[in-house]
Amino acid sequence: MSIKREIREKPLLVINYKVYASAFGSRGLKIAVAAEKVYEKLGRNILIIVAPPATELRLISEQVSIPVFAQHADPVELGANTGYLPLELIKDTGATGVMLNHSEHRLKLSEIERGIEKALELGLTTLVCASTPRVAGAVAMLKPDIIAVEPPELIGTGVAVSKAKPEVVTDTVRIIKQVNTEVVILTGAGISRAEDVGAAIRLGTTGVLVASAIMKSENPEKVITEMAEVAIKEYYKRG
Amino acid sequence: MSIKREIREKPLLVINYKVYASAFGSRGLKIAVAAEKVYEKLGRNILIIVAPPATELRLISEQVSIPVFAQHADPVELGANTGYLPLELIKDTGATGVMLNHSEHRLKLSEIERGIEKALELGLTTLVCASTPRVAGAVAMLKPDIIAVEPPELIGTGVAVSKAKPEVVTDTVRIIKQVNTEVVILTGAGISRAEDVGAAIRLGTTGVLVASAIMKSENPEKVITEMAEVAIKEYYKRG
Amino acid sequence: MSIKREIREKPLLVINYKVYASAFGSRGLKIAVAAEKVYEKLGRNILIIVAPPATELRLISEQVSIPVFAQHADPVELGANTGYLPLELIKDTGATGVMLNHSEHRLKLSEIERGIEKALELGLTTLVCASTPRVAGAVAMLKPDIIAVEPPELIGTGVAVSKAKPEVVTDTVRIIKQVNTEVVILTGAGISRAEDVGAAIRLGTTGVLVASAIMKSENPEKVITEMAEVAIKEYYKRG
Amino acid sequence: MSIKREIREKPLLVINYKVYASAFGSRGLKIAVAAEKVYEKLGRNILIIVAPPATELRLISEQVSIPVFAQHADPVELGANTGYLPLELIKDTGATGVMLNHSEHRLKLSEIERGIEKALELGLTTLVCASTPRVAGAVAMLKPDIIAVEPPELIGTGVAVSKAKPEVVTDTVRIIKQVNTEVVILTGAGISRAEDVGAAIRLGTTGVLVASAIMKSENPEKVITEMAEVAIKEYYKRG
Repeated sequence: MSIKREIREKPLLVINYKVYASAFGSRGLKIAVAAEKVYEKLGRNILIIVAPPATELRLISEQVSIPVFAQHADPVELGANTGYLPLELIKDTGATGVMLNHSEHRLKLSEIERGIEKALELGLTTLVCASTPRVAGAVAMLKPDIIAVEPPELIGTGVAVSKAKPEVVTDTVRIIKQVNTEVVILTGAGISRAEDVGAAIRLGTTGVLVASAIMKSENPEKVITEMAEVAIKEYYKRG
Repeated sequence: MSIKREIREKPLLVINYKVYASAFGSRGLKIAVAAEKVYEKLGRNILIIVAPPATELRLISEQVSIPVFAQHADPVELGANTGYLPLELIKDTGATGVMLNHSEHRLKLSEIERGIEKALELGLTTLVCASTPRVAGAVAMLKPDIIAVEPPELIGTGVAVSKAKPEVVTDTVRIIKQVNTEVVILTGAGISRAEDVGAAIRLGTTGVLVASAIMKSENPEKVITEMAEVAIKEYYKRG
Repeated sequence: MSIKREIREKPLLVINYKVYASAFGSRGLKIAVAAEKVYEKLGRNILIIVAPPATELRLISEQVSIPVFAQHADPVELGANTGYLPLELIKDTGATGVMLNHSEHRLKLSEIERGIEKALELGLTTLVCASTPRVAGAVAMLKPDIIAVEPPELIGTGVAVSKAKPEVVTDTVRIIKQVNTEVVILTGAGISRAEDVGAAIRLGTTGVLVASAIMKSENPEKVITEMAEVAIKEYYKRG
Repeated sequence: MSIKREIREKPLLVINYKVYASAFGSRGLKIAVAAEKVYEKLGRNILIIVAPPATELRLISEQVSIPVFAQHADPVELGANTGYLPLELIKDTGATGVMLNHSEHRLKLSEIERGIEKALELGLTTLVCASTPRVAGAVAMLKPDIIAVEPPELIGTGVAVSKAKPEVVTDTVRIIKQVNTEVVILTGAGISRAEDVGAAIRLGTTGVLVASAIMKSENPEKVITEMAEVAIKEYYKRG
């Protein structure tokens, strides 16, 4: 099944490696292998995507069968662009998607648009982050495959989405759906425990974008398993 | 009549001074005075807005009664932000609006959103530029007062909008209207002669954002008059 | 006496307005007028420079005789550069100098160099900020008129330069002098009281770059007077 | 022999892959293998360094014994910095050095300083680009291992350094040496043929930073060989 189809038919768990000490080398690879193992173990009833740093894309893409996304790309052309990461380069590593506009790496509006357009041409799946309901609505007009909503109320607070104002997520979902019914929506902030994944799905999103809860865990496979199990349970219950 | 109402009831001519040699000092002021004179001469049937550099805002706002817009503002807070131009500062000069995301000064999506939000709080009118139909649609979701569409086919080519593919403008208008029926739309590229203003209005926009045709003219008042007359003729004909 | 000569023969007090609420409009002007008054009152034995926001440059330059510096400029050319502040524009306002690379507004190395070069062509005096001894040494090679050293140990800590490690300042002075004996050196962080100005001069710098201690004071004239008096006393004692 | 020693005792040829179509995948690896082959073939009398895109660093570092440099790094810390490339990450790939401030990827002065400092802590060799003699002098104060001078007169013009004003290079070398006698200096622009490498060394630099002449060649090994042979001949002749 193609990614573009799979993200529409299953719950979704995207692991943003960021550049934690566990994000690269053998530790980074090990987390990808664990994610793939959970994917298989749970009967492929959830899609798990890993987003390691650019330096790890080629190696990890070769070693695991689950989708690998870049954390960022530069919407520039191949050629004389020293130090940049054009989408063609990302594609060549074996990665099948790219994140754009993460809250730690904001892009110009014109760069987001060009990035989505180029990704589409190259067959790469796009995940674009958005901080507020209005920004999420704007991003939805650019037609990425996935939008991760990062309500400022939830970012880096450790506050669970289920306990923060849940209407921030539901409002965002409502605004996005008014203009784009195709895009897959993730909750992209405030995910620290398995129960937060459940809340994210009950609030109407397809899954989560998660980072430190897995990357800083002593047992990433265990955390991935717990989150994936809750996601599957809540997603299919929803019908 | 308030600007926010006036831009909805009249054709609109926004003069972007950029930083041409004629944009500041006595020459910059003279163009604003000429614009005001045309505004009065034509019975206030068109709204003419001038957008001089930041250094000229205070002086020009004091000398003319037509609206003065900043060319850019930084969506930062008052305080320890050396060298930046917060919206509160723009407001204090007497300017009544602000341009954001001009093709020569692209902003991050999150900056555009924050800029529009702060402008709204301060009672400043916003004019946001957008390069493509999709970007224009995205900007429309952020609810600025005015969007200037700058089709890449027209930017800096000297190609008249009436002769370039007119569907680029009509497509953009259509996409914006699907998600935002309130916003005023301008044609923001390819305006070099009065007939281009007519074409811009016939294609469904409310007026134009124009720069070099006026700023580099030996007789700015004459060019403003010609453009304004055509704008009035086409706008009210449309009904 | 020209600024370029005056900064070599007197102690120096540069007031960075930043964009505090007191930085613009009548309050901003009042602080410039107070600074001029102190300058005259103390027999012009100290040079006091004000650096208000770009929007205030023209008005303040017209109203006071002391030098007015911009807080920032963009080393771009006149022409199609919407929203930028070329040095020619700064010059036209009546400002006689420009700050570059403030810790709140870092520039690319190539921009600092181009800015200094253009300022020199236009007869504008340059004040470039530098965070560390090594950066200060690098800046000194670019031959600005003034360098303000901002030891990270002192920035925004409220820690007086006299109590923090004084060798940070003396080391910086030593490194700069090895490669550039012409440049005037200021202490640019940790100045909250008059005694800090004294310490800055005793450590071998010509004066200070100060912001909040004056901008947030209820009686700016009093603070300027106290700082200027100490500066004069310590500077001429040094011989 | 360590790189830091080798760059002081041999001529130097640095191949900047940029992001040409030949820069990644099997083609990128093949060029690195060719460079290593030339290095061995010529008795290791020249040091050849390859600088592929970030995505290729790990693979190429594993496959060849010659030094591999990153084209760019972000002087940020490990942790929550999505999409950035901290120096620790570069180090972990097996790369032994990093380029900073290429003319296509200019950095803030404070970033260059922090990058050099972190590279030093990590044992990575630094190559910093500089556009003008003055900028080169400034960079020299920051103590990188290598400076590549890119006289604007030579960049991207296809004009050979031997035919352009050679004093641009000799002036730059002279200014750098006044403040830093340790740093290795390369000619970083205008290198299209083997004879340009000879001219670069005769003008007092240790070698060249070259890109398109190799990356766009149908026979990279041949071009590398020719350039390396001339470099060896001129370098050791100089004594």
